[in-house]
Amino acid sequence: MREIHEECGVFGVWSPVKREVGQVAYTGLFSLQHRGQESAGIAVNEERVIRSCKDLGLVHEVFDRERLTALGEGQISVGHVRYSTSGDSSALNAQPMLVKHIKGQLALCHNGNLTNSWELRRRLELKGCIFQTTSDTEVISYIITQKRLQCGSIEEAVCRAMEELEGAYSLVMSSPAKLIACRDPRGIRPLCYGITEDGCHVFASETCALDAVGAEYQRDLEPGEIMIIDRAGVRSIREHCGTCSRALCVFELIYFARPDSVIEGIPVHESRKLAGKYLAQEHPVEGDVVVGVPDSGLDAALGYAAESRIPFEIGLIRNKYIGRTFIAPDQMQRSQMVRLKLNPVRSVLKGKRVILIDDSIVRGTTSRQIVSLLKEAGAGEVHVRISSPPFLNPCYYGTDIDSRGQLIACTHTVEEIRDLIDADSLGFLSVEHAGMLAPGRSGESFCTACFNGTYPAGVPANPEKMRFEQDLT
Amino acid sequence: MREIHEECGVFGVWSPVKREVGQVAYTGLFSLQHRGQESAGIAVNEERVIRSCKDLGLVHEVFDRERLTALGEGQISVGHVRYSTSGDSSALNAQPMLVKHIKGQLALCHNGNLTNSWELRRRLELKGCIFQTTSDTEVISYIITQKRLQCGSIEEAVCRAMEELEGAYSLVMSSPAKLIACRDPRGIRPLCYGITEDGCHVFASETCALDAVGAEYQRDLEPGEIMIIDRAGVRSIREHCGTCSRALCVFELIYFARPDSVIEGIPVHESRKLAGKYLAQEHPVEGDVVVGVPDSGLDAALGYAAESRIPFEIGLIRNKYIGRTFIAPDQMQRSQMVRLKLNPVRSVLKGKRVILIDDSIVRGTTSRQIVSLLKEAGAGEVHVRISSPPFLNPCYYGTDIDSRGQLIACTHTVEEIRDLIDADSLGFLSVEHAGMLAPGRSGESFCTACFNGTYPAGVPANPEKMRFEQDLT
Amino acid sequence: MREIHEECGVFGVWSPVKREVGQVAYTGLFSLQHRGQESAGIAVNEERVIRSCKDLGLVHEVFDRERLTALGEGQISVGHVRYSTSGDSSALNAQPMLVKHIKGQLALCHNGNLTNSWELRRRLELKGCIFQTTSDTEVISYIITQKRLQCGSIEEAVCRAMEELEGAYSLVMSSPAKLIACRDPRGIRPLCYGITEDGCHVFASETCALDAVGAEYQRDLEPGEIMIIDRAGVRSIREHCGTCSRALCVFELIYFARPDSVIEGIPVHESRKLAGKYLAQEHPVEGDVVVGVPDSGLDAALGYAAESRIPFEIGLIRNKYIGRTFIAPDQMQRSQMVRLKLNPVRSVLKGKRVILIDDSIVRGTTSRQIVSLLKEAGAGEVHVRISSPPFLNPCYYGTDIDSRGQLIACTHTVEEIRDLIDADSLGFLSVEHAGMLAPGRSGESFCTACFNGTYPAGVPANPEKMRFEQDLT
Amino acid sequence: MREIHEECGVFGVWSPVKREVGQVAYTGLFSLQHRGQESAGIAVNEERVIRSCKDLGLVHEVFDRERLTALGEGQISVGHVRYSTSGDSSALNAQPMLVKHIKGQLALCHNGNLTNSWELRRRLELKGCIFQTTSDTEVISYIITQKRLQCGSIEEAVCRAMEELEGAYSLVMSSPAKLIACRDPRGIRPLCYGITEDGCHVFASETCALDAVGAEYQRDLEPGEIMIIDRAGVRSIREHCGTCSRALCVFELIYFARPDSVIEGIPVHESRKLAGKYLAQEHPVEGDVVVGVPDSGLDAALGYAAESRIPFEIGLIRNKYIGRTFIAPDQMQRSQMVRLKLNPVRSVLKGKRVILIDDSIVRGTTSRQIVSLLKEAGAGEVHVRISSPPFLNPCYYGTDIDSRGQLIACTHTVEEIRDLIDADSLGFLSVEHAGMLAPGRSGESFCTACFNGTYPAGVPANPEKMRFEQDLT
Repeated sequence: MREIHEECGVFGVWSPVKREVGQVAYTGLFSLQHRGQESAGIAVNEERVIRSCKDLGLVHEVFDRERLTALGEGQISVGHVRYSTSGDSSALNAQPMLVKHIKGQLALCHNGNLTNSWELRRRLELKGCIFQTTSDTEVISYIITQKRLQCGSIEEAVCRAMEELEGAYSLVMSSPAKLIACRDPRGIRPLCYGITEDGCHVFASETCALDAVGAEYQRDLEPGEIMIIDRAGVRSIREHCGTCSRALCVFELIYFARPDSVIEGIPVHESRKLAGKYLAQEHPVEGDVVVGVPDSGLDAALGYAAESRIPFEIGLIRNKYIGRTFIAPDQMQRSQMVRLKLNPVRSVLKGKRVILIDDSIVRGTTSRQIVSLLKEAGAGEVHVRISSPPFLNPCYYGTDIDSRGQLIACTHTVEEIRDLIDADSLGFLSVEHAGMLAPGRSGESFCTACFNGTYPAGVPANPEKMRFEQDLT
Repeated sequence: MREIHEECGVFGVWSPVKREVGQVAYTGLFSLQHRGQESAGIAVNEERVIRSCKDLGLVHEVFDRERLTALGEGQISVGHVRYSTSGDSSALNAQPMLVKHIKGQLALCHNGNLTNSWELRRRLELKGCIFQTTSDTEVISYIITQKRLQCGSIEEAVCRAMEELEGAYSLVMSSPAKLIACRDPRGIRPLCYGITEDGCHVFASETCALDAVGAEYQRDLEPGEIMIIDRAGVRSIREHCGTCSRALCVFELIYFARPDSVIEGIPVHESRKLAGKYLAQEHPVEGDVVVGVPDSGLDAALGYAAESRIPFEIGLIRNKYIGRTFIAPDQMQRSQMVRLKLNPVRSVLKGKRVILIDDSIVRGTTSRQIVSLLKEAGAGEVHVRISSPPFLNPCYYGTDIDSRGQLIACTHTVEEIRDLIDADSLGFLSVEHAGMLAPGRSGESFCTACFNGTYPAGVPANPEKMRFEQDLT
Repeated sequence: MREIHEECGVFGVWSPVKREVGQVAYTGLFSLQHRGQESAGIAVNEERVIRSCKDLGLVHEVFDRERLTALGEGQISVGHVRYSTSGDSSALNAQPMLVKHIKGQLALCHNGNLTNSWELRRRLELKGCIFQTTSDTEVISYIITQKRLQCGSIEEAVCRAMEELEGAYSLVMSSPAKLIACRDPRGIRPLCYGITEDGCHVFASETCALDAVGAEYQRDLEPGEIMIIDRAGVRSIREHCGTCSRALCVFELIYFARPDSVIEGIPVHESRKLAGKYLAQEHPVEGDVVVGVPDSGLDAALGYAAESRIPFEIGLIRNKYIGRTFIAPDQMQRSQMVRLKLNPVRSVLKGKRVILIDDSIVRGTTSRQIVSLLKEAGAGEVHVRISSPPFLNPCYYGTDIDSRGQLIACTHTVEEIRDLIDADSLGFLSVEHAGMLAPGRSGESFCTACFNGTYPAGVPANPEKMRFEQDLT
Repeated sequence: MREIHEECGVFGVWSPVKREVGQVAYTGLFSLQHRGQESAGIAVNEERVIRSCKDLGLVHEVFDRERLTALGEGQISVGHVRYSTSGDSSALNAQPMLVKHIKGQLALCHNGNLTNSWELRRRLELKGCIFQTTSDTEVISYIITQKRLQCGSIEEAVCRAMEELEGAYSLVMSSPAKLIACRDPRGIRPLCYGITEDGCHVFASETCALDAVGAEYQRDLEPGEIMIIDRAGVRSIREHCGTCSRALCVFELIYFARPDSVIEGIPVHESRKLAGKYLAQEHPVEGDVVVGVPDSGLDAALGYAAESRIPFEIGLIRNKYIGRTFIAPDQMQRSQMVRLKLNPVRSVLKGKRVILIDDSIVRGTTSRQIVSLLKEAGAGEVHVRISSPPFLNPCYYGTDIDSRGQLIACTHTVEEIRDLIDADSLGFLSVEHAGMLAPGRSGESFCTACFNGTYPAGVPANPEKMRFEQDLT
């Protein structure tokens, strides 16, 4: 159902004693599963020797008890989930990326997207470097290990490498003796830090993973910060902090993150309720019930209902058994597929003026099908309210908001979209309000490029080449 | 998470033309998946030859494209889902049960439980019958096929067989030329009937399956009714109708059925909201937010919130990726497991007096863990309200509400349970209100045996023997 | 490669102490795998409760450690392997067949084929019996359990049942307290008996399975004999012995059995060498090397070489990795497939007059391809010698020697076959010699129906109906 | 059963037209399966874009129809099989290794072992290179791609790279436009070249793979030769030819290669018969039958029998269904395992003086068990003859002949070994005769290091480090 995908979720843990630390990563990744369903991987560092296991599939598909046990015991573990693209994505691109260099092993997990990876690859290839994957992560591995030759420590090498990396990246990595995490100087992708009761230090893309492993949230990494955990304790390198203005991806709040996560101090559920509240102010309409598209539209629907004083209702039931292996029967039309995933609650909808809240419109197809579903179930009117502004620009920072041709809002007015999805009215959240989802924080402190084309970390010099490289294998 | 299981869901379809009718059953079963996750099966009748495929697993696990295609084309298909018990449930017990007798083949799907199956088996064994499964369904197959020897038609044989069957049963079956459905004279388990635009006749345990296959709901089968669909059209035998007072399982409304289903004209979502409303009247309490345990407590929570005028909130997020193959890490305590499945939304709960709505308490363990979760997330008070009365009696009619020793309410007072789950207050729906979940319908027209011990269809003469037989293989 | 299939292999073991007796059956079945590759199953009797596991696949595919362990411990285990037909053979037909009747459970394994199963089924169906499989074994189960009602013991019931069963059958079964084995009065299918050092009693289709489990061969069951093993010791019922003249399937010696097995005192390898010797006498030819088609033609080739004093050579290498899952590339012609399975040894064949020994010709296709292979490898002449007579009649006793239309020898003269397979000469073993494969034993004591049409146990009254029944599901 | 493993088999094909060329590689690899059962992989070059698929498992396990089809069409395909080590060998080490460098992609398959890989890795790591596998192949990839920066063509880069590689290597690789094969200057590992009727050019480790794909053998690559196939035709670079004396691994003839292969003009089957002949001359003994251990001892047994005029017999039957997934029952002693794999033919052995021919003794365990098997089956005497000299030295050139501690011949005299395996006499082939397995070719032209310690390509400076590196991940 979801039409936009986050690229990744990352996780890392350092334990003061040797234990089955890969199980902690497993639990953490399980809570980050929504950030990537293509592949999953975990690496465990047992006294400087790092073992890893990764494959295509969901966390619980990749890891059965045997595979989890085979990772062994250690003090450091890092893990990764990656999103599901259509078709032939390769198991080779799964992470953690585990490499051996002159100073030992490095297991690296990356969330984000570089904007200069094409240039960096080119430069490395000219030195005779070979690439076995199409991922940015391999580029980052090279940059760090080459810097390592000239630096006294792995953290210094990471710090030097960050000078060359452009774009969005939150990294969690294990060197032979250290767990290291860092965030790009704009902080486009989130990364937080927590501590468990038994003294494990944990990094994760979202706080819901801290909750899952019983870690108490300490703080988010600052944009540009490098954190190092080892036997000597916790250290931080802030050399890159403050060199750029911060630019957290606003779509993390609107869409990607789990509603129970807190990102840079902002409770995601509250952000979405706020979006619903703004929507009600911007696009009021007379109605009988407010219905959210489950599960992603529910939070904003609550906010809209509260502001408009129109009752919140459960008007659509999601079939929770739908999975990637569901076979659409041959004769089934695409429109019928929605029926399997979502079923209307007739008693709630019949004869009602329904205000339907969803979080985004990408191509419009799903929205049209849902509106049709509600009308067949007897809804008198269907007023669609979207808790994000229209997508007008591609994302180069680690999500798959697509090229302009695919985005309905690039080629249609709001009225045309309304007509196309057959809604009685349609309203999007304004870009201005999208920047106001965290009380007391300015809109400029978010990346809203997909809505307004202002790219805080620039765009690739050569986006087509970048894509070509990525499709090569 | 769910501690009580429905035994089965059944589905049947008759198509006026030969087609891949098994795909319709597949789609229907997919919507009935919540009624049984142990095994799934489909049989397709192609010109009097019935092929079937069934196995342990969810519908989408049992059927890949190859297996679905192998079922071929036909005019009749029946399908079944069965619930997941612990451990070594056998693939042999999967349904449809496909048997060959003197008049041809019979594919039979059964939802419910007989109370006299032990006596019937014994009688059949004394005639030299052999049993290859431990299910009631094999008993029913024998009874029907033996009656068939003395009757002029399969429907007459079914009608005669119903005189011998005691207990709860909704059956859907394919004979060589007919699709037949029937419901026990008390109508303990639901069964409804619909027609698609292209003229397919459909039977299903719940209306959500009619929706899924695009069939328009016509009516529920009456208690005791037999419906027959074949080339000659639709016929009904009502010989057993009205011989007993009706007794729909009230727990279908409270718990088993999907909220988007309508059973005997009662919209399930509205029943649950009504339960929430009654709860608010019976057990009012001062609070700041009403939070439902997802997904089953949400409907009643809406009703409680509306009646009490306390805001409904999303205070718990369910991890939708949890599945049967999730590996609980070895060192993880059971209490931590809940954390993986449910995570509190701190911003909603912190410092609040929370009214928590759930649909049932069986052993109390899960409730205690959820209350503890909310308190750790900062909830000031947690008032638990349960939208069903306490379970005091086992169910012999097709669910696994267990023997008295396992039911916390049999051995503890409400106050003791409250103390045990560490809630600030606790209230159950009264049995009286449980009988009032359908406006204008009397409580006597429901089976509420699990709450008050009044068994409308009697109890097995020999419940221990029944259980022994069932555990034999 | 093999064009004719034995239907089954059976195994049974009784242990004086409770142990993982299913592992003994597993080991035994593994050695009987050549008798059936379609499905495998094992049942273990633990204090009157019988658990079973069976599925499509080879023994090592059906049983992983988990499934083998799940069978538990017990004193009795029976097992079965079944042959691989093309396509959609059902897991339901896998054995052991495990049934429950008035006196307890019965796990039954059957090798052979009844000739009156259609009549028996009909009679049972008229009494209201239902059938869940298409196998003879279910018929036998019914007959035995119905007799059991009138008999004082299971062995007496088996004895009475044998009066009604016509055709070929070697049975091994577990009742609640006994391991029972029997052979039809003609002894068409083999069955032998052995004892291990630690006192386990073992039944198996062939002695190679006794060897595998470390059991010392005691003797073959006599035709018509019933053997019973239980706590009281070993007993034998010989009521049916001697009621018919013995008729061991001669093709067990020529083809089905493993060369290291000994059947009714006849070492199979020696029988085949004898066939080769007779062939050399009947069809002498000048040649440079004698080459057997591996693996089944090697024994006879040794015999031919010894008699003719022409050197035995290894002229064809079988690829031992070929399995059922090998994918024939799309563009590969069928003739190329042989090349993958068998490759000629050029240095052996080049310029040589080759005498090629194979055990049978069914359709002639494979023979033609092998001759062509040898000629391409440089063989000057290829003289084909077949260590069995031509197939002229179908088998009704448990192998799949097919209807007459498919047998090349029914429609072609030897000269025509020679021409078709492009051999320089061709000779079959005479029927007379085929009856002389056991020194000192008359040809009349074997079933040679497939060669001469003399059916010792009659033919089904209604072979088409029999087949129809079998294809029904 | 086999105690020594070849490391790999390689295959490559160039088709004049675009076609499903991966299927040709599949067929070829299938015939090379004996050279490696750990993992398999195929890469297909479709107009400069190379797709690959590789995984742990046998060829037919790794490739189902879907995966084979997904490789698409192209003009070049290369493939690889790798041997099965115990336990946790990684899918990452599977080949072909597919890398991207500045000039495009390179898919590389390697058979052999470098002796200076540790030094080369170290040097590359000092330049900042990272390694994702522990295989020599990644080192070779780096060396070639770095040379490519300074060379005008890939073949020149390969030629320059060969100056740095020391040890044994037969390589087959696909560049964007060329299929390239080469052999180390000593020709330690084999590599041959053939052409199909429809104009495909094929490279393979053994001629049996040429036979399988219908290619006519042209010649072996010369030691040191590089062959290039592209649209411009076939070219050869012989710059490294003749720079060293040739040193084909003699164990290819004795043990590794399939008997139907021809290596450097030497028919393998004839070599082994010759070994048997020499054995009969060196170690004559009075006996009644000559029995080869199947399958690897059969060829030498034929030679021994012919020379000694003692009859060749089939005295042991191999169970051809034994596979890697066979579960050894818990209570089974290791000695019983042999019984499952090999069963004696009693009628052949009873009371006989048996001359048993096997191809090697590594640890002696298997030999002892086989001798015991024969004696239990009634053999009066067992005289063991081994068609290779005793192993005294480890192999550094691509097989796993182990460190000295594991080799029984390093620590025991022949008489002690005879005693240990309980044979009546024991004889090994002499090293001198091992060098005479190809008529007219001197013993110095073979590598016989494992027998006499003369390493033609030197030994690693740092064998322990080499091993350490390899075990790291």
